Formats: sequence, C-alpha cells, structure tokens
Amino acid sequence: MVHQSITRRHFMKTCAAGVAALAASKSAAATDKRPNVVLIVSDDHGRGDLGCYGNPVIQTPNLDKLAAEGVRFTNAFCTTASCSASRSVILSGLYNHYNGQYGHQHSYHHFISFDRVRSLPVLLSQGGYRTGRVGKYHVAPDHVYEFDVALRGSGRSPVQMADNCRDFIADSDGKPFFLYYCTSDPHRGGGVAKDLPHQPDRFGNRDQPYPGINEVKYDPDDVIVPDFLPDIPECRAELAQYYQAVSRVDQGIGRLIQILKNAGQYDNTIVIYISDNGIAFPGAKTTLYEPGMNLPCIVRTPWQNNKNIACDALVNYADLAPTILDFAGATPRDYEFHGRSFKPALERQHAAGWDTTYASHTFHEITMYYPMRVVRERRFKLIWNIAHGLEYPFASDLWEAATWQGNLKRGNTTYGRRTIDAYLHRAKFELYDLQNDPHEVVNLADDPNHKTKLDQMKAKLKAFQQQTKDPWLLKWNYE
Amino acid sequence: MVHQSITRRHFMKTCAAGVAALAASKSAAATDKRPNVVLIVSDDHGRGDLGCYGNPVIQTPNLDKLAAEGVRFTNAFCTTASCSASRSVILSGLYNHYNGQYGHQHSYHHFISFDRVRSLPVLLSQGGYRTGRVGKYHVAPDHVYEFDVALRGSGRSPVQMADNCRDFIADSDGKPFFLYYCTSDPHRGGGVAKDLPHQPDRFGNRDQPYPGINEVKYDPDDVIVPDFLPDIPECRAELAQYYQAVSRVDQGIGRLIQILKNAGQYDNTIVIYISDNGIAFPGAKTTLYEPGMNLPCIVRTPWQNNKNIACDALVNYADLAPTILDFAGATPRDYEFHGRSFKPALERQHAAGWDTTYASHTFHEITMYYPMRVVRERRFKLIWNIAHGLEYPFASDLWEAATWQGNLKRGNTTYGRRTIDAYLHRAKFELYDLQNDPHEVVNLADDPNHKTKLDQMKAKLKAFQQQTKDPWLLKWNYE
Repeated sequence: MVHQSITRRHFMKTCAAGVAALAASKSAAATDKRPNVVLIVSDDHGRGDLGCYGNPVIQTPNLDKLAAEGVRFTNAFCTTASCSASRSVILSGLYNHYNGQYGHQHSYHHFISFDRVRSLPVLLSQGGYRTGRVGKYHVAPDHVYEFDVALRGSGRSPVQMADNCRDFIADSDGKPFFLYYCTSDPHRGGGVAKDLPHQPDRFGNRDQPYPGINEVKYDPDDVIVPDFLPDIPECRAELAQYYQAVSRVDQGIGRLIQILKNAGQYDNTIVIYISDNGIAFPGAKTTLYEPGMNLPCIVRTPWQNNKNIACDALVNYADLAPTILDFAGATPRDYEFHGRSFKPALERQHAAGWDTTYASHTFHEITMYYPMRVVRERRFKLIWNIAHGLEYPFASDLWEAATWQGNLKRGNTTYGRRTIDAYLHRAKFELYDLQNDPHEVVNLADDPNHKTKLDQMKAKLKAFQQQTKDPWLLKWNYE
Repeated sequence: MVHQSITRRHFMKTCAAGVAALAASKSAAATDKRPNVVLIVSDDHGRGDLGCYGNPVIQTPNLDKLAAEGVRFTNAFCTTASCSASRSVILSGLYNHYNGQYGHQHSYHHFISFDRVRSLPVLLSQGGYRTGRVGKYHVAPDHVYEFDVALRGSGRSPVQMADNCRDFIADSDGKPFFLYYCTSDPHRGGGVAKDLPHQPDRFGNRDQPYPGINEVKYDPDDVIVPDFLPDIPECRAELAQYYQAVSRVDQGIGRLIQILKNAGQYDNTIVIYISDNGIAFPGAKTTLYEPGMNLPCIVRTPWQNNKNIACDALVNYADLAPTILDFAGATPRDYEFHGRSFKPALERQHAAGWDTTYASHTFHEITMYYPMRVVRERRFKLIWNIAHGLEYPFASDLWEAATWQGNLKRGNTTYGRRTIDAYLHRAKFELYDLQNDPHEVVNLADDPNHKTKLDQMKAKLKAFQQQTKDPWLLKWNYE
C-alpha cells in the first residue's frame, strides 16, 4: 500500500480501521497529508463566558468565529475540576484516579502519572506527528508527557505564545503536527488590584498591556453574574478582571489562527478549544457541580459539512485523546483508553449513544483531599462525596478571593443559590434533577420517590469505578 | 592534614567538627578507619515484643544480646506509622510532610520524595562510604535513595539476606561501609492459615522453613496480649504467628552479626536495630497512639563504655540519619535535617535536652487520608486529627485481620482499652496524660483544668509545623 496515492477521504477511513503504523514510516511522512491538530487549553474558563455560548457582554470574537465554523459542545465535561489533574486526563485519555496524577503536580503537591501511561503527544509522535507545546504544562513526569519541542512563551501572553509557534507551524518536513497551546489566562494571579474598588484579584491583568494584546476592559456593572455566584460588588469586580483575561485568550487564538492561515495550514488543521475546569470562584473550580465541570468545547475541522452546530452529546475530557488519535489515524492497537472517540458524533446536534458521562475528582492541592465520583445523565446527576465527613476544602486562592471573603464579611448565609452551610457540609450522596433543578440545590438522595433512580445510578457509578480500576472503589465496602 | 595518621578518637572528634569531605578522597579511603554502620529495619515490630524490652515469651536472643552490649531506647519513635513513609524519614532525616513521600510508594499509592532530598546513603557515599542495601526498600525515586549496590534476597528470608551480604561486608577496598538490612518480617502476609483455629494471618510463616531458619512456633495460650488489643482467640492466634515471624528476624540478625565477626568487622561496626512502625494490628500501625509510634531502637557501638543501657531520651526517626552521619563524620555542611544527632545522648540513661518529640502522619494507602500531627512530651501528648470529620481509615490488611473481624463478630463494643466508637471517630484534639493514662483513653482536650497545657502544646505543634514547612499548617487557618 503506497501512502502517497491515498486520497484524504480514503486515508481517514483507512486510518480509522487502524493502520496508523504505516504512516509513521519516514517515506510515508514525506507527503503525509493527515490533518494537523491544535489543542488549545485555557485555564479556568467557564462555559458561560463566551459569546458563542450566549454571553452578550464578554468579547470573544475569535472563539465565536471558530464555533461558527465548527461545533460547540453544550455537554462537554472535565472529569476533575483541577488544572493539573484535568490536564493529565486530557493528555492521557484516562481518568486521573488511574493515570496516577491524583492532584496538582507542582510544588509540594507533587503528584505524577505512572510510567505505564501512554500519552497523546507520545502516541502521536510514534504515529508520525511532530509534537510541540507552548505555555502551561503542569503534568509529570516529562518522559510520560513528552513533546518533541517545548516552545517558549509566558502563559499570560497568548499573542506572544502564538507568535512563538510560527516556525513550528511553518516547518515543512512533511509531517503533520500536533500543537498543544495552553494559556495561563484566565486563571487568578498577579495579586490583588489594590487601586480598584473591592480589590479584586488581577487575573493576570497588569498595567502594561501584554505584547500584541488590545486589552478589553469591562465595567463591573456590565458583567453577567451567574446564578452560582453572589451578586455583590466584590464578585462583579472580580468577574470584570476575569473577563479581561478571557478576551486576552481570545486574541491569542486569533493570532494563532492567523498564523495557521498564513502558513497555508488552516485548511488542514483541526482546532479544538477547551478549558481545563470551571472558573476560579468558589462554586465552580474544584467542585463537580455543573459550573465546575460543564465547560466550553469547540471543535472545528476544515472539512466539516455542517457548521455552527451545537452538539448535545455528553462527552468528557477522557474522550479527547482517543478522538484526536482517531482524527490522526494514530490509535494504538494494543492500548486502552477510558474515553472513546467522539468523531462520529461531531456534526450532529443529537448523537445517539452519548447520554451518560462520569467524573472523578480527588485532590486539587495535596491538602485538599475530597474524593468525589459522579455519574451524569441528561436529566439526573449523582455525586458521591466519599469524604463527606470533611468540611469542603478550599483552594488557597479561592478562599482568599474577594468574592468569597466579601460575601462572608457581609454576613450572608447564602452564596449564589446555595446556603454556605450546604456548600461546606455536603451529604454523602447528592442526587439532582437537572431538568427541574439546574442549579443543583435540591438534593433528592433521601427522597423515597427517587430511591430507584438513586440505586440505579449508584450501581452505574460502582460499575464505572470497577471498569476504570478506581482505588477508591473500596470505600463502598468499609469506612 | 594526612588522614592516615589520625587516631580513631581524634578522627571522630575531627569529623564531628565537620571535615567529612576529606575522608571522601581516594587516598584517604585506602585506610579509612571510620566505623561501618549496619542499619537494620524490621517491618511492623512492636516495642513490647522483644525479650530485652520485657517480653518473657518471645524469643529474640540475638537482639537481646545486642541490647546487652549497647543501648536500648525506651522512648524512640517513628514519626509516621506507615512502612513506606517511615522509611523515607529514616533515610532522609526529614519529616515526610517535607520530604514528599506522604504515604506508600508502591502500586497506585505512588508517593515519591522530592529530588531536593539528600538521603543518608547518598551522603554517606559522597562521604567516602560503600553503601549497600538488602530486602525491603519501599522508597522512591531511586536516584534520591541511591545505594551503590542492591543485594539480592527475599525480605522474608532473613538468614539468606544476611548470607547475601557476606561479600559486601568482606570487600576490602579500604572504605567503611553502610549496610541497610530490611526484613519484610514480621509484616502481615502470605494469606490466611486456613488449617489453624481462628484462621490467623500467616505473617509470612509457611510450611517449609526458610533457609537457615529454625522456626520458633508459639502457643496462642502463651502470647502476651498487650492492653491495646482484645484478648480474644483470633488475636492470640495472630500474635502467635507474629511472634514466629519476629523470631525469624532475630535469627537473621544473629547470622548477620556472625558474618560481621567472621569478617573481622564487628569491632568496627555500629549496629542499629529499629522497626519502621508499630505492629500490624488495628490500634498500633497507622496510628500515632503509643503502640503505633513508640518502637524498639537498639544501638550498639563497639567502643561503648556503658553497656546494657536503657536510655530514656525522646528520639525519633528523623534523628537517625543525622546520628549516623555524625558517627560517620559525614555530616554535610550545607544541608539541614529536621532531626539531630543523638550520639551525645547515647550512653546515658537520662540525657538532658531530649524531652520533646514530634510526629507527623498523613497517609498510609492513598485512600487513607488521615493527617495527624503530634507533640509528645514525657508526660503529655497532643494529637491533632486534622481530618477528624472522617471515620478513621483502615489499611486493607488490618480491616480484614482476624483480630479486628473476630472482635466485630463477637459484637464487642470495645477493642483493647478503647471503645470501637472512640477508635473510629476521633476528636479534633486528643490530649493525654501518659503518666496517669498510659493507654491514652481519657482525652483531656476539653478539660478546663488542662486548658493551659493544651494551648501550650498547640503552640509547640504549630511552631514545629512552621519550622519544618508542613503543608498542612494552613489547616489551622481555615477548614
């Protein structure tokens, strides 16, 4: 079989049938026409905070355009609402209770994946791709998550990051490429803006604009305060900062797409945009409530027939690596992921067989032990809080956040739609009817009318844990 | 300064002054007369279960002889009552909340130390020692805890292990040696003895004796049931198995000492015997109650003036590496341990300045999050159960133990001196007066008469955590 003579359509079909190894050979690589893949991961960007997902205030024209050319998933979920752990799932296709990175990788948290993990960049490299990364990494060990090149660029300077990818994109060695472009925006950081009312966190914003960025500033009066947050001035002030950081991400993506076009690669490149977990406010990030796990996910392929699709398939981040490998025709024969390719579901608004998803969160910081396991259907959601005896632990930056502290200082007993007490002290099982209770406030776990549903979802959860070799499975039996 | 001309007395003094680097040079090594060090670590051996510590039943003649020639500490403590974590403290001189090995290293637990740790074998090697290990290792990564050679031998076959050290001991390259000899006895293991009444765990015992071992078998009627265990047949059956495994360790040590003597090295060798943590029964191992942390520690130096000493200094396992390096004259100049050398206290029954010690336990298995911090004085002891909202987690083998299950099946509400409820549900703070309440049953933390003591010990604990950079320090502030 001579690779050069294969049309792309035929090639994609053949690849799907699993003949990836061929493509890896040097002679094949000379004219390898498989698609490039750009995977963009932003940091703590919520699903509600993009134009294309319905926010009329925030300015994300480049992401909106990408969505208009492609598919935006309305039910895409991270499996763990913590940066480092989530990235390990994205790159491994395995829930982090099995890939070993149970929580943060950096500093004293020090979680790392097992050597047995075969990550997306390594498999793509073995499959004949050039692989490069720029910006936030946050996984370990290096040899497990190895990229051919690590490009320079601060994760807070997304246009500069894009510019630094130019040579990598243009490199004409005949191999397709995989670019992993990860901003540190819109994560909290850079200290408190002491000069501003209510002293919000800066979310990386600074007085001098970042190179190539036209900073978009927001009036706190204009931001949309989602239902899970308290509508207090501190929260509005912080959301305004956060919006600004999101618009910076968007401009980086604009530049990156321009570079792909200039290099003549855009028409052969799949672009995927996701965020690692929900926004960095109590009530979202680190939780497996919807704002923590239901995230933006935009996929644009150049050969798409149906554009501007809102796809309601329940996909999660363990599906990303298998999907990308499927697109690349580099699915390994002898290796199993927890996720599966959602390529067949891509151009459909309603795809059959994508009605249940799972999540598994254990740590954020090493001091934040709070294992949760989730089964999420279209209507019902079950959360098992394994360590429910503990007060819900806070990430240090979320605890200090003006939003949380401001709400406490006001003596409020609620935070968004929840009582503070309910936020801090959780039941062992939380069962929600998302259709009638989208904000997950009314726990039905003790409701006799939902006993059958509860039992059925518990059984599903347990089966999921068995299948994915979850060490916390034993908690069903004792303690 | 020419090393060869230095007498041992002078040399030891000089080393103590910190000129270790010299000894590392090749020319010096040719006649390096510094003492060899043999560090023996057994697995889950309690302080009450040796002849020399007052047990009239168990047969440990070789350990008893070692104690008669040396010093036995009556207040030696591990700092974490978990094999793997404790070994990281032994080899690093750092509490495991700072060395990074917060719990088990093996399998999916997957904790490893930081690269910045400079371990005992590495420092001794840099200081001119040959370093070898045999048996249980259980720490990672290898390059942090690197030994020159890893000798073969099953940790369950201690005489064979000793035999396998013969060549290493005899090697006459002129360098002193450090041998780290670690049995897997008397840890639980090998399954349940189904043919025996009450189906005790085998504790490694098997039908065929191990090479070179004269198995000592015990009648369950004869064993001493300590106060923290229930005097039920299942427990007696398991203690009999455990005793047998302890006697096997003792015979391995006998053989090892014989080999040292035959090689003409015994008179230039410091031998230290410890156990990593308390016995593998609920109530000891994984807890920081006295049976979990107050352990056998025998030190025999060849040049000791006072023999058969019972030293009551409060020492802990973070002191071991600094002590051994002090003996070896290899204390690094530019590096700080959490512990300190107890060499000056060695030949004294009562040594001044050794009246307070600390402990810090966080995980055993990854699923067993239960951080405890302890300050232990001669009379009072404070335990801070940071995750007191959780039911006390069980190691899987302790949960399944005939002792625990047998006690449950009988419907007993107590286990040893404690109620089962108190064992499983612990107060945030436990304050004990060990003089009047050696079994730690009466918690004085809420007693107004002990308020001053409680506050003082809390302050000490907090200062300890600050000084040793404990990540869990933040739990004083929130949650």
